[in-house]
Amino acid sequence: MASRYGILLVGPNCLGIYNSENGLCSIFNPRDRQRFPGPGGIALLSQSGALGAAMLDWMADMGLGMSKFVSYGNAAVLEERHFMEYLAGDPKTRVIALYIEGVKDGRAFMETARRVVARKPVIVIKAGRSREGAQAASSHTGSMAGTFEVYEGAFRQSGILYTKSLREFFVIAKALSKLRPPRGRRVAIVTNGGGMGVLTTDAVIEGGLELARFSRETVDLFRRLVSEGRLPEHGAYGNPVDILGDARPETYEDALKVVLSDPSVDMVVLIVIAVAPTLRLDLVERVTALAGGKPIVGIIPGSDFARRMARGLEEGGIPVYETPEEAVAALRALHQYGMIRERLARS
Amino acid sequence: MASRYGILLVGPNCLGIYNSENGLCSIFNPRDRQRFPGPGGIALLSQSGALGAAMLDWMADMGLGMSKFVSYGNAAVLEERHFMEYLAGDPKTRVIALYIEGVKDGRAFMETARRVVARKPVIVIKAGRSREGAQAASSHTGSMAGTFEVYEGAFRQSGILYTKSLREFFVIAKALSKLRPPRGRRVAIVTNGGGMGVLTTDAVIEGGLELARFSRETVDLFRRLVSEGRLPEHGAYGNPVDILGDARPETYEDALKVVLSDPSVDMVVLIVIAVAPTLRLDLVERVTALAGGKPIVGIIPGSDFARRMARGLEEGGIPVYETPEEAVAALRALHQYGMIRERLARS
Repeated sequence: MASRYGILLVGPNCLGIYNSENGLCSIFNPRDRQRFPGPGGIALLSQSGALGAAMLDWMADMGLGMSKFVSYGNAAVLEERHFMEYLAGDPKTRVIALYIEGVKDGRAFMETARRVVARKPVIVIKAGRSREGAQAASSHTGSMAGTFEVYEGAFRQSGILYTKSLREFFVIAKALSKLRPPRGRRVAIVTNGGGMGVLTTDAVIEGGLELARFSRETVDLFRRLVSEGRLPEHGAYGNPVDILGDARPETYEDALKVVLSDPSVDMVVLIVIAVAPTLRLDLVERVTALAGGKPIVGIIPGSDFARRMARGLEEGGIPVYETPEEAVAALRALHQYGMIRERLARS
Repeated sequence: MASRYGILLVGPNCLGIYNSENGLCSIFNPRDRQRFPGPGGIALLSQSGALGAAMLDWMADMGLGMSKFVSYGNAAVLEERHFMEYLAGDPKTRVIALYIEGVKDGRAFMETARRVVARKPVIVIKAGRSREGAQAASSHTGSMAGTFEVYEGAFRQSGILYTKSLREFFVIAKALSKLRPPRGRRVAIVTNGGGMGVLTTDAVIEGGLELARFSRETVDLFRRLVSEGRLPEHGAYGNPVDILGDARPETYEDALKVVLSDPSVDMVVLIVIAVAPTLRLDLVERVTALAGGKPIVGIIPGSDFARRMARGLEEGGIPVYETPEEAVAALRALHQYGMIRERLARS
């Protein structure tokens, strides 16, 4: 399929040949089964045409925004590095997400990658990691998949983030398209559900991040807000901060302000059990008003109401996930990219 | 929240006190933000009330079916083992999914678990695995979370499946609610997208399963179907079987029949890139007609059309996932449970 599609350059709401002058788009797949992501910061490069098309459809469903999409098949003329170079200078692209089976010229790829990564993050999912997968790849795009260890080394050296999980690929791309890296690895958690707070604490630790230890000022501030009746008396004000199941949007706003102001907090996980009767959609404006500084990611599992809240937060710059492990993978990637950029700036 | 809810026993489409005689249900959360899973084989036990409610809402969204739900909070009178014992004999429950922070009487829990696991699978997600998480749990439900190593050992000895990932928890629960364990670990992959086939091959190998090596009869059968024009000439008929981007529902049916008939195949992953123009919804009946024997799981990432197809397959007994790693986690758990049951039968 890849070779039949050839090279596609598409813009938002288009799969096919997209003309950015007049906005026209030739669609190859029927409109009733192919949705397209709206505008956003993710550029997707895919060596597989069919997978690329499915990823666009899925991205639309997940609410992910796209800047450019390229399906370059067997890379007969242009390779991924040529597109990466172009996207590094594209003002609409905030993160480059790359599906590859094999790279033709490894040295040239690495040189390009290093230059690109200094400007914006690159996340890769590489297929053909196992011997069996490499065999399948060679019959698919004719790629020489090579040993994955070599690729891993190249990714690490050039500062490319990589993952083996297709879900994590998009989890990380979403975070990198919306947020800047944190200063450090210390996480604060604010939740209206104790259980989800505990699961998230575990995920933070297991993900190699740290739980922030609040400063004395923060402890005092929490105490004052409790005595003023603005935060619940029986809440928990260590970390995680548990504002309990009857928290209102104002409670979230107060708690979030406190943790964001603490210098020992580098980033925040905001957990919303959206089924709670005391929540309203004005949580979105109250919380997004505090976004833009330290990275904030949300965890909101659920159905319709939960998703409305999540999409609202995402429009306001707060990426939202359904599980603790995904929120933590997002924060870990942000932190990693911050360290990579520092390293590249020094060298 | 857990303690406020107390103990809830709920049936399908109800969170609250469910009366199975008259089907009445008292709802505590507003109906516009709390959805409920339809009927199905998953019994959910949650030590956290808020998390439990959010999980129900999310399960409804994911199309997971529920038999019973119990939120038992700080387990003042009844503990998880009492509910497990009951659910082991409940004809509607095919898998018991358990969120716990801590168990009061470890020995009694293990004894019960062993008896229950011999009858049906139990999957656990345990919060409070890290020191920090255990601390958070103790302020939440008063649980003594203990060291996770002790829990891990207990789970393993009593044949409980466990995961650290909330998404995997439901991925596995879905598979176990629909499928019986395979005979062995050899997987066949049928796909209309080469890239997804390669990614799935990697996931199979990295997940500790094996790629089936087709028998001579299968190779011959594929050759014959190609010569008859029923399978595409340029397809790939090793494993993964790539029936290409213009595969029709009949192509899937033919390819699936072949791999299912091969004695060296224990289970099948069916990949559908649903945006492909040649696919129609009658794929669902053609494929589900072949379900019921060897376990089949699907991978169908995408939006509306993809989801319609996925839900159709699931109603016909084929659990569907969005990513390779999730489909493989499902198959691995099925295989694991098969080995556990054998071990328990011997002892």
